[in-house]
Amino acid sequence: MSLEGNWFSESARGYAMSLEITEKLHEEESSYQKIEIYETKSFGRLMTLDSLVMLTSRDNFVYHEMMTHPALYNHPNPKDIVIVGGGDCGTLKEVLKHDTVHSATQVELDERVTRVSEEYFPELCESNNDPRARLLFEDAIAWMKNATHNSLDVIILDTTDPVGQAKRLFTEPFYRDCLNALREGGIVVAQSESPLLDLNLIVDMRNEMQKADFVQIQTIQFPLTTYPSGWWTATQARKGQKFGDFREQIARHKPFPTKYYNADIHKACAALPQFVLDAL
Amino acid sequence: MSLEGNWFSESARGYAMSLEITEKLHEEESSYQKIEIYETKSFGRLMTLDSLVMLTSRDNFVYHEMMTHPALYNHPNPKDIVIVGGGDCGTLKEVLKHDTVHSATQVELDERVTRVSEEYFPELCESNNDPRARLLFEDAIAWMKNATHNSLDVIILDTTDPVGQAKRLFTEPFYRDCLNALREGGIVVAQSESPLLDLNLIVDMRNEMQKADFVQIQTIQFPLTTYPSGWWTATQARKGQKFGDFREQIARHKPFPTKYYNADIHKACAALPQFVLDAL
Repeated sequence: MSLEGNWFSESARGYAMSLEITEKLHEEESSYQKIEIYETKSFGRLMTLDSLVMLTSRDNFVYHEMMTHPALYNHPNPKDIVIVGGGDCGTLKEVLKHDTVHSATQVELDERVTRVSEEYFPELCESNNDPRARLLFEDAIAWMKNATHNSLDVIILDTTDPVGQAKRLFTEPFYRDCLNALREGGIVVAQSESPLLDLNLIVDMRNEMQKADFVQIQTIQFPLTTYPSGWWTATQARKGQKFGDFREQIARHKPFPTKYYNADIHKACAALPQFVLDAL
Repeated sequence: MSLEGNWFSESARGYAMSLEITEKLHEEESSYQKIEIYETKSFGRLMTLDSLVMLTSRDNFVYHEMMTHPALYNHPNPKDIVIVGGGDCGTLKEVLKHDTVHSATQVELDERVTRVSEEYFPELCESNNDPRARLLFEDAIAWMKNATHNSLDVIILDTTDPVGQAKRLFTEPFYRDCLNALREGGIVVAQSESPLLDLNLIVDMRNEMQKADFVQIQTIQFPLTTYPSGWWTATQARKGQKFGDFREQIARHKPFPTKYYNADIHKACAALPQFVLDAL
């Protein structure tokens, strides 16, 4: 019953997802965490942080596209974007596909994540030299507290799980700093874990966003094979106004390719399972 | 890196899903396969057939609801239903929630699957004594070949993976027998594996359905934690007509509870990822 051969496993609360490993390509202890890169048998490369899956070559497109395009097409004219975390640069790359974007600032604590990604996931880093991109390596909590009032259109919280340091990124004081930094109609979108395994966390996050005076909150769902339960969510919150219609015609004729996202998926991803609705 | 403790793992092609086991409750070799029941730490009970996950207490609701309600609400008046396979009786239970249904016939090869389910998943078998239910234990290929022409409204192919015997349930001759047994406007719905891992199989199945002269084919997607990749599909095909509007108002006010399905999910599940659309 045990897995034969060489596998990376991430397990929690009685569930585990494993990928067969052909080679360990890299391992280091950065100032913040242990970063490892593996070559897998069928999911391309795998990056782990403190032994938790951060991404694989094969399925990261679902996550990066769904963290980016629903929020950016929900916004009528997203010009100035901040990504919190996102050190692998996959979200940055998706953001920069939008020609409305004037600036995209990635605020990642651990520069080593980005340097390792540049080496092992070059396809995610190919827009890092876009003149609109700015890569900062500092604490996002402090950065957001000092951000200029009314200066941003979309904030993407591409963070690790809400444990340890990252926990503060899921609470009202930080969300209030995000609200303050956003322009009227601005949107914050946060990865919000598994609906099957972490439903309470989604409820809590939404409450914290509400306490921070966001006007409307919307959770979307998508599959994500290599994250716990294979099923993930992102939660968007809007400043000053409700979510209106998204820019559907533009999304339907977007000038860049995607592998998961399209305009129909945009409409569909906000439909939530009954047990999630019942909990909210 | 290996899993500590007692785990059941299902692995294929470099990916594995594992559940922590607290006890093995049952094991037998039926005439057709090895049937095992485990108590898991966090997913309730687990049934495996030949060491492949058939279902768990915790997440089977997604599968059973999505195999049933989209097809039954797509049909204007589903009266006579056949389930092929489905020995755990979870699909049968969902079908019998519909008051349009006059008869629901489950054609399962292995009676032992049903008997074991009655003992270990009684919540799935609570409608087995409904006067509209008929449980047959025989070969579905032969059954469908002899089925009365124009006698059924929905056929649900709740089968195992297309390997060995079950392979024939994914090919044109069997689909043609289904078509023959369906009334005009009737719908066949088949579980159609993982879009991430088995995209070719979905394409092949749809081609076989087309060859069998179904007028329109529609694949839907949903998360499913304990099946490979945590991401699954079902494929519906309609006899004689295209899929029209589903019975939305009735679905929106259905008189029975569901945990995953609702009318918004119905509309959403037919939106397919771009890489799937590109392959179809």
